[in-house]
Amino acid sequence: MPDHRSDRATLVDVAAASRVSRQTVSNALNYPDRVAPQTLERVQQEIARLNFQPNRAARSLRRQRANAIGFQVMAGQERVFNDLHDPFLAALTEYAQTDDAHVITFVADDDEILATYERLLSTQVVDGFVLSHTRHADPRADWLRTRGVPFVSFGRIWDDPTVTSWVDVDGCAGTTAAVGHLCLAGYRRIAWLGWPDGSPVGDDRRSGWRQATADLSQDAESLSATTEQDALAAAQVAGMLLDRLSPGDAIACVSDVVALGVTLALGRRGLRPGDDIGVIGFDDGDLAEVFGISSVRQPLVDIAGRLIRMLERPLAPAEGVVIPPTVISRNSTTR
Amino acid sequence: MPDHRSDRATLVDVAAASRVSRQTVSNALNYPDRVAPQTLERVQQEIARLNFQPNRAARSLRRQRANAIGFQVMAGQERVFNDLHDPFLAALTEYAQTDDAHVITFVADDDEILATYERLLSTQVVDGFVLSHTRHADPRADWLRTRGVPFVSFGRIWDDPTVTSWVDVDGCAGTTAAVGHLCLAGYRRIAWLGWPDGSPVGDDRRSGWRQATADLSQDAESLSATTEQDALAAAQVAGMLLDRLSPGDAIACVSDVVALGVTLALGRRGLRPGDDIGVIGFDDGDLAEVFGISSVRQPLVDIAGRLIRMLERPLAPAEGVVIPPTVISRNSTTR
Repeated sequence: MPDHRSDRATLVDVAAASRVSRQTVSNALNYPDRVAPQTLERVQQEIARLNFQPNRAARSLRRQRANAIGFQVMAGQERVFNDLHDPFLAALTEYAQTDDAHVITFVADDDEILATYERLLSTQVVDGFVLSHTRHADPRADWLRTRGVPFVSFGRIWDDPTVTSWVDVDGCAGTTAAVGHLCLAGYRRIAWLGWPDGSPVGDDRRSGWRQATADLSQDAESLSATTEQDALAAAQVAGMLLDRLSPGDAIACVSDVVALGVTLALGRRGLRPGDDIGVIGFDDGDLAEVFGISSVRQPLVDIAGRLIRMLERPLAPAEGVVIPPTVISRNSTTR
Repeated sequence: MPDHRSDRATLVDVAAASRVSRQTVSNALNYPDRVAPQTLERVQQEIARLNFQPNRAARSLRRQRANAIGFQVMAGQERVFNDLHDPFLAALTEYAQTDDAHVITFVADDDEILATYERLLSTQVVDGFVLSHTRHADPRADWLRTRGVPFVSFGRIWDDPTVTSWVDVDGCAGTTAAVGHLCLAGYRRIAWLGWPDGSPVGDDRRSGWRQATADLSQDAESLSATTEQDALAAAQVAGMLLDRLSPGDAIACVSDVVALGVTLALGRRGLRPGDDIGVIGFDDGDLAEVFGISSVRQPLVDIAGRLIRMLERPLAPAEGVVIPPTVISRNSTTR
């Protein structure tokens, strides 16, 4: 690769032009409080005049910092259609960049994840991580904390919530708000279409439906079903759930993808979301907007910003931030 | 941040254990042909025994390489719902990783893109770029080539196709194949719902429809309409197009997102995709699969793999790879 940097000013040029040592220029860049004010001003003027840009690799070596954050993306078999990944990664990238840091994506199978962390850290590709897709018995937080690696999580660390930093939407309160919204809109019985038991996010969201529908004194369990996070699978299960419902009833869903499956099942029966059966999702991603599906909002840009700020304060105490839910009302809950 | 690397073997440890100088260890790592075979073998044995991992920051400094590829992601107002971004980035990450390289995401407004390249290169955050979203009068390729920066493009560099390396699906042939598929399925008139004139990808895809329908001797232009890449906007325009069509006709679309808009418009009129009006998209992303929409395939994993391999051969002549189209048939083109 040809060198496209050969005509650039170097640290040596700045030192010569400022009539100081290279070490002083380095200090001016990295520890300005160690440099006499007049000298600092002179060096900074020459840096600006020569348009000198410190070499990141050199700074990285000196500071032992990569200025980069690792973020796992799902490839191959693990990948499911999730319209939140893309906007969340974009928001994370944007916030990292304003802090002069970068996001590095990586892939890893579950059984390789800790070895991948080890490799990315020991080769100084990243300084820390933003986790997502947290689950029970998740080994990541413990491994990272033991080694003093900075990390934060989109979604709480379920087994370890008080000693790590995370931002999460309140799933239980969110689903309770969704059920309340359906009641106010005049729907009678409110069914639940969730994920299989054992997913902490899914269980948390379902608990909100359980609590809210207990007050409605409906026979809850017969109106509950589970499906994978897959719109076509959800459409099939929704068909069975619809056999037990009548027009004027509603289905609260664990996610937008699942709610989309419900609207597909309704379409196959000639029923309309909203008019015939109320449908509400969770996440408020692009799908919900495109299909006019009411949803509980996950404010991804706000969440990404909070996570990056937490990560930049590695010595601050661990903090769990619960985002209160907001219901976004659309056609699918309008009668 | 505590140092989690303090117990790791260093280059000094390897040098001591191998009874050679640090420079020899460094040469063994970076220029093995400069080291005597017996010495090289001894150093490599000690590297393995001590599980020594060269510090990437140090290697980067010496080799002037970041081992990282920049990939622009869209944030804020520029972001549109695109179910291809996420799987393409995941595939790119996976292929880069097998080459011991990484993908760094970044955001930039159009008027900042060259300054952003400059910054990422001069601070040695990345060595090169994978471009996407190419367009006419795109300044990126020329800027990068002039500076000798390695880059490849998902989508051809329209103004500069012979001197840069890219992989692209043949949009014209793809839409021709889509129209052929609709004819064979028995649909009569075949309308086009595309993007506004001037987008090279959109124009290329439309040209395939123009050519194919010329043979069908239909009054093409009255059956053509344009819309933004937005499902709700497409649904509105599709309504107007449907006023000019009858059951048994079909609409070929410039993308899956637009085809999704057509199926929404059909649903609002009580019409069924496939049975009443044929619908085919382009891209074959997650949306097409979930909604049973026939589509022209963009093999993202294959494309990502080819791009990474091209990027690793910076001295090879520029190469444009056109992927021949494959039509994926689903319910939306089944009568």
